[in-house]
Order: sequence, then structure tokens, then C-alpha cells
Amino acid sequence: MSAARDKLAAERISVIGLGLIGGSIVRGLRAAGYTGPIQAGVADAAEAKRAVELGLVDRAETDTAKAVAGATLVVVAVPIGAMGAVFAELAGAIAPGAVVTDTGSTKLSVIENARAGMGPGIGHYVPGHPIAGTERSGLDAGFAQLFDGRRVILTPTPETDADALSRVEALWSVLGARVSEMDAAHHDEVLAATSHLPHVLAFTLVDTLARMAERTEIFEYAAGGFTDFTRIASSNPELWSDIVTANHDAILPVLERYIGDLEAVRTAIASGERATLAATFGRAKDARDGLAAERG
Amino acid sequence: MSAARDKLAAERISVIGLGLIGGSIVRGLRAAGYTGPIQAGVADAAEAKRAVELGLVDRAETDTAKAVAGATLVVVAVPIGAMGAVFAELAGAIAPGAVVTDTGSTKLSVIENARAGMGPGIGHYVPGHPIAGTERSGLDAGFAQLFDGRRVILTPTPETDADALSRVEALWSVLGARVSEMDAAHHDEVLAATSHLPHVLAFTLVDTLARMAERTEIFEYAAGGFTDFTRIASSNPELWSDIVTANHDAILPVLERYIGDLEAVRTAIASGERATLAATFGRAKDARDGLAAERG
Repeated sequence: MSAARDKLAAERISVIGLGLIGGSIVRGLRAAGYTGPIQAGVADAAEAKRAVELGLVDRAETDTAKAVAGATLVVVAVPIGAMGAVFAELAGAIAPGAVVTDTGSTKLSVIENARAGMGPGIGHYVPGHPIAGTERSGLDAGFAQLFDGRRVILTPTPETDADALSRVEALWSVLGARVSEMDAAHHDEVLAATSHLPHVLAFTLVDTLARMAERTEIFEYAAGGFTDFTRIASSNPELWSDIVTANHDAILPVLERYIGDLEAVRTAIASGERATLAATFGRAKDARDGLAAERG
Repeated sequence: MSAARDKLAAERISVIGLGLIGGSIVRGLRAAGYTGPIQAGVADAAEAKRAVELGLVDRAETDTAKAVAGATLVVVAVPIGAMGAVFAELAGAIAPGAVVTDTGSTKLSVIENARAGMGPGIGHYVPGHPIAGTERSGLDAGFAQLFDGRRVILTPTPETDADALSRVEALWSVLGARVSEMDAAHHDEVLAATSHLPHVLAFTLVDTLARMAERTEIFEYAAGGFTDFTRIASSNPELWSDIVTANHDAILPVLERYIGDLEAVRTAIASGERATLAATFGRAKDARDGLAAERG
């Protein structure tokens, strides 16, 4: 951790996007004792003013080229749908040798954006994804401890250079995260199952119920289980439409498998096959209890 | 509340079943200052011994007839699948004029059990359902505050007498719950949507993922959103198989509607219809945020 801290101390950091993830990165850097300059790219002048007033960053710019000027480590923390535009703007603006990473929830799509934008500079790009978040978004949603003890997956490309990789590892290590590496396509499959599919299911369920005639009454009698189950349906719908669209190749097979399993459960309910239900529910409880036990 | 407390003070209470719900009722009664006798019916001698040692009840019996002897207010808090047997045992055992209520998650099926068991005494039966719970079960799962501020739905039958109804209202009022009345069939539809369907979806998802080859890795990279979304899949599978089987008439239409909506979302993902996804997700977020705001 001390080596990581020393390595990070030499960087001039620029974070593009100060939403939940970017805002938590800059807060976490300060909380971890990073005293170097932090500059940021934000959506508009009002947000730039506020970000500086709140003491989150030293400088905030609405122009991406200005936001990355002089930076040695650039973290692109914008929504998936904005990645293409940001990487296109970075191309001519970053300093030679500057390392670029991102925090996007899908990796193949962002790698494609990065290749298009950075061209021959792609070796200095390290694709990344912190497995952390809440259903909140915006400048006030972030907090310094968001990444503490959480996993960050880096998915280096064949071109990614070793020095760039170790500098990005140092960033996440200082923020308290546990860093691991994975193939980008595999990352997208794993996240489709554990994150993207649950969001699709929760959004769809709440919408199904909201469009029913008894809508008001249904929500009035919802209990704690429903509240937990549907929390992720309060996530940003634009951001999630982009994630689901970007990762549709990995989401579709697991969504189709789920619909098939749900059809089987429907048949079991309709036919009164209680034993089938008990077996399905029991396997699920065992797996879920195992997960809870592992987390402590 | 004081009137309710006075009314309840005159009862001799028997609770059949000391799981999460029954165990919380007896703890809550003591916490609310009820000093009258509490007797209980439990599954086996070891549990009877422990329930008395823990000070949860004054007397615990494995024989239902003995458990309700002398009681003026009987609360049947056993799993849905055991309701029929318990109501059959109650018939010859309860004191004349004793009021019987239950805590089952489905109401039409328990009313049927009660009619079969209590016959002409059905006027003294008040069907009830506290909308409260956790994914835990058993003698140690209950806690005194479980019903505090939570809703309890009573679904009186045409025969239910007014005095019986008001005595059951007093019980829940003393436990801190907000009591309302509803038609039993309507209750079953509302709960199918907000509770039974989410449990079916969560159990099925965890089982789908647990049967995938990448199972270990999938669960390893699951984050907080997944943990919340799947918490209810740790619920008791036997209990939930019974609930789903008992309420299949109300669950099937809303499950089929959900599968239809999910098929539409699948098509939108496959066709890259981002705007359709954004509209669906946006409606869901609005409804979910409204629910969260209402809860404070």
C-alpha cells in the first residue's frame, strides 16, 4: 500500500466525470492522503464551480482537452453512452505517455471506444471497472469509502503496457480496493449475470406493477422484502439503458436462460408441482446463504 | 391504544407456532406490557423447553389441544402448509367463544382451512396477515419490534363477528401495527404482486445463476445491488413453496404479465431499441422513487 501510495504521489490526476464513481474517486484520493493536483472534466459551468467550491478538485473544466492538460493519469468516469465522445476528445489532448483508464460497467464497448479515440496510443489505456455503486447518481452521490474493500476488475488489452497497468493498480489500491484482472469478454459475461440482468429484472418488475390498475394499493402494501428487491430500480434509467445496449451480447443469453427457467417455474405453479418449487427454491437458498456467509 | 391495551389485558393468549412471526408476537406482547398468561403450541419437546427457558411464554405444549386449553384468543402462526392440520385440531379443543386469528401470507386458502376445521364456529375466526418479516425463520428469528409501524391486513368473512374483529384489532394495535381491512381475494392479489412474485423471481434468478458453469466467479463478483436484490432468496424454501402453491390463482396472472413484459424488454435489447429501454426503466425509477419518498 505504501509503495502504491508513493507511485501515486508522482501523478497529476484528471478525472473526467464527477458522478457517483468519479466523485467518490476524488473524495477517496483526498481521504487517503493524496496531496497532488486533481483536475476534473464536468458537464457544465455550474457543476465546475460547485466541484471547486466543495473542495473536491483543484480545477474543473467543461472542455475535456483543458481538463486533461498536463495530467499524467486520466480516469474516464462518464456514463457508458458518453465514453465514445470523451475518448475522441482525449486523442489530441493528452500529454505523451499519460495513462488513461476508465470505470465503465461494460468493457468490450469501452475498449472499442478507446481504440477509436486513442489509435496508436492504445497501449497507455487500461480498461477498468470498480464493482461498487449505489442507486444514486450526481455530484453529491459520491463518498470517500465507496471502494473500500470492494473489487476492481482490470481487463488489459494485448497492447496494454505493464507500467500503465501498475500505475492504475496503484490508484485503486490507494483507494482501498482489491484489484484483479480478467479477460474483457469474460468480464462482460460475469457482470451481465450479477449486475446487468438484476437491473433489467427489477426495472421491468416495478414497471409491470406500476402499470397495473391497483398500482397505488400494490405499492402501499409493499414490505421490506419488496423495498430491497426493487432498490436497484431507482438507478439512473439513461445510464442503464446505455449499459444494457452496450452489453447486449452478454446479457441476452443469460436473460433468455432466466426467462426459460421462469417459464418452468410458471408451469410448476400452474400444475401444482410443489416438489419442483421446493427444489428450485431450496437450491437458491443454499447458494444465497453461501454468498452471505462468504461476505461475513 | 390505551383502550386496546385494556381490551387485550382481559385475554388469555395462545400462540400456535413460535417462528419469526409467532416468536415476534410473544416478545412484542411482553415488551408492550401485556402481563396476562401466554401459552404456545410448538413443534417438539425441545422447542417447548427452550421457549419457556427463554421466557418467551409461560407454557409451551406440543399438543395443539393442550396449547389452546383455556385461551380466549388464539393466534395461529404456523406455515401455510400446516394451517389445515392445526385448524382441524382446534375444532374440539378451543373454549366456547374463544377468538381465533391467523398470520398466514395467503388468505383464501387459510379461510378454507378454518371453515373446514371450525365449522359453525367460523364466526369467531378473524383472518389476518401482518405485512412484516425478514428472510430468517425459527425460534430465535423473532424480535419485539417486528410489527412496529407495519401494516396488518384483516380480511373478515361474512360470518366474522364484530366483537371478534375488534379483539384481534386490539392485539395488533398493542403490537404497534396499523390495522386495515380488505377483501380476502383482493388481499391475495395484492400480495401476489408485492411479495409472492418477487420471491419467485429472486429464487429463480439465484437458481439460474447457481446452475451456470461460472457459478463461483459470478457470485464472487456480485456487489451490493445483487445482495439486496437476492436477499429474499434466503427465505425458507418449504414455507414459500406452500405459499406459492396456496396462492397460485393470484400469482399466475401477474407472473404471466411479468414474463410478457420481460419478453418485450428482451426484444428491445436484441433490436437495440434504446429508447424503449429508457422509457421502461424511467417509468420504473419514477414509481420506485415515489415509493421510497412515501416511506420517508
